Amino acid sequence: MREPKTGNNKYLKELNQATILDLIRTTAGISRKALADRTGLSATATGAIVKELLGAEFIREVGEGKSSGGRKPVMLELNPDSYYAFGFDIDMRFIYAVVLDITGKIHYEEKWENKSSLTPEEAVRQIRRIFDTVVSDLKLRKERILGVGVSIPGMLDITTRKIYLAPNLGWSDVDIREGLSQELDVPVYLDNEAMCSAFCENWLGICRGVEDFICINIESGIGAGIFVRGKIYRGYTGSAGEVGHISVDENGPRCKCGNVGCLETMASISAMAQKYRELVGETCPAVSENTIDQNFEALLKGAREGEPACLRIFRTAAVSLGKAIGYLINAFNPQTIVLGKKFPQYAGLVLDDIAKSAARTALAHLAESCTIVPSSFGENSSALGAAIIPIRKLFGK
Amino acid sequence: MREPKTGNNKYLKELNQATILDLIRTTAGISRKALADRTGLSATATGAIVKELLGAEFIREVGEGKSSGGRKPVMLELNPDSYYAFGFDIDMRFIYAVVLDITGKIHYEEKWENKSSLTPEEAVRQIRRIFDTVVSDLKLRKERILGVGVSIPGMLDITTRKIYLAPNLGWSDVDIREGLSQELDVPVYLDNEAMCSAFCENWLGICRGVEDFICINIESGIGAGIFVRGKIYRGYTGSAGEVGHISVDENGPRCKCGNVGCLETMASISAMAQKYRELVGETCPAVSENTIDQNFEALLKGAREGEPACLRIFRTAAVSLGKAIGYLINAFNPQTIVLGKKFPQYAGLVLDDIAKSAARTALAHLAESCTIVPSSFGENSSALGAAIIPIRKLFGK
Repeated sequence: MREPKTGNNKYLKELNQATILDLIRTTAGISRKALADRTGLSATATGAIVKELLGAEFIREVGEGKSSGGRKPVMLELNPDSYYAFGFDIDMRFIYAVVLDITGKIHYEEKWENKSSLTPEEAVRQIRRIFDTVVSDLKLRKERILGVGVSIPGMLDITTRKIYLAPNLGWSDVDIREGLSQELDVPVYLDNEAMCSAFCENWLGICRGVEDFICINIESGIGAGIFVRGKIYRGYTGSAGEVGHISVDENGPRCKCGNVGCLETMASISAMAQKYRELVGETCPAVSENTIDQNFEALLKGAREGEPACLRIFRTAAVSLGKAIGYLINAFNPQTIVLGKKFPQYAGLVLDDIAKSAARTALAHLAESCTIVPSSFGENSSALGAAIIPIRKLFGK
Repeated sequence: MREPKTGNNKYLKELNQATILDLIRTTAGISRKALADRTGLSATATGAIVKELLGAEFIREVGEGKSSGGRKPVMLELNPDSYYAFGFDIDMRFIYAVVLDITGKIHYEEKWENKSSLTPEEAVRQIRRIFDTVVSDLKLRKERILGVGVSIPGMLDITTRKIYLAPNLGWSDVDIREGLSQELDVPVYLDNEAMCSAFCENWLGICRGVEDFICINIESGIGAGIFVRGKIYRGYTGSAGEVGHISVDENGPRCKCGNVGCLETMASISAMAQKYRELVGETCPAVSENTIDQNFEALLKGAREGEPACLRIFRTAAVSLGKAIGYLINAFNPQTIVLGKKFPQYAGLVLDDIAKSAARTALAHLAESCTIVPSSFGENSSALGAAIIPIRKLFGK
């Protein structure tokens, strides 16, 4: 309702402030007058909000715009180096850590290696250590830290944000958010890893302004973050995007989920690494993430050197991936499909195969209207996306 | 923005009116005071809106509610038999026509048969004839007709609402909306057939209040209408939900789309009718919709009588359908999947097989949180959903 009876003025004020701030973000160099015109707010109200935002250093004045007669208007833009957000991505063997400012500029980026998979308590402690070190190194003022986003390779309860299953970490039914909030004394947000990467693509990457897209992460497993009408799509229980378990080959290998021929068993990094092991005649099982990575590196090297057997492994995987992408195109009719995490490392070898395979499974007019592209980020896309969660909130998203 | 500078009071008034009206719709027997409490509008503003709605006969007063001390409050409800909407579903051999009032009560329902597929001009003329007859028979006042919704078995341009392809009707690049608006002199809305059925399930059926669901229509083809966060999901170009072209069998028959083993070639009414023809030894191709229907009826009769070969046809189709449903559950994590159109006729024979097959392809926790149910409507769900388009608008949806 637009005519509230009792005082939610604070809410309205925050809403108007977020809207103004978002206009300044999306329209580089905008004047107070343009802000008033675009929002429908009065010049006085706009002026008051701008003054507050300037005072708090969220924005700054920059140069002068073109005059349409009178005094040249002062242009406004986001203030870089003013407010910051941390993003962490807890992986099996790494913690990726980033710090962004509100303009999206990266101030810190590091991959912290762990000997083995962390327990929830160890993860909390390590995040705390990294956070403290970076705050001190970058000389960040605590009140200028908007929050910390944490990307989890697993499923979270849609309301409580408890992790109910992170199979690769061996975690189930844990709540690390509360512990972290207490340790860090800033707001902490948890989200699924593929959904974090989708935030990253939507805020900083190729899907800026794209309403309907799917971001598919190719790693040891395969998962997707889906944007629908400009917002993340979570589904009924918060687990939308489990595209790694779409079956693409009736005669394919059995997946740990119980089904056969899941995309994950055909086109993930582990699946390709396993095929490479078979190729070179290794017989003991590739148990550790470490072995997967080493085999994948060797496979990639072989393919880049034109080794036909290595290329064949990539191309077979690409056909399976394209097939699943075709299904998703038929169901979602997205504008863009971004392939991320490890994918950009070998995109050049397989992008054509994927597009062809997708075009075979999708209806022609739907395939034609969808662009399939590699992510411009690497394996840090989820950490970046996690950092974007507190930043998005500032802009009312 | 909540503080508009210049006069969009008309817009605000309509918005408040729609909100009040929707509260009256969803809360059977609500008082003026409860309306004010729920909306945050003042008693005076609420009273004025209610007065207007009563005057225009959208709502009526009904009995008295419980008093919380003072005078017993008068309760409000939607006025049945006050305002109406028409829905038409243009099929290959039929036009389904319905009239609903704003409470969703059906006042007219008819299946008009055509000897052959209609041209766009013929369809416009026939709709006009049906409309005029029904208006006169039901003695409807023109100003009480909110509009006409038309369901099209094809793809519509997302902005212009031009039909760019309705393969079964043999229509391409036609605009029947403008012609119809002129002929009927009421607002006309066109939408895709499966999306119309989804509107029907969401407004009148099992998916009332369900935010995320997929309505799959099983007819001569297979298509889906998808609701995401309480709203129809159209995708980038308006064609989301082409689930009939998800391939479920690499060795399946070639589909007219070019791919092999599309769900439509495995589990549609035509596919099952074709298998029945093969079973009984008919060899000439089943060209007309008529032959499909007759064969399907015979197949259904056989299956109901326990004929194993007939049951096998249904069950094989059910396994394919369940498989595709499993993919959709993994990708969308919906709360409900409704199966409609011809499906309710044979739901009892196959529902278990479908659920089992879906549970095999979907991740366990996603399959468990999703209910697969037959529609409680028949083949008229798209006509009903089409009629709901103008009704929804009244309630600001």
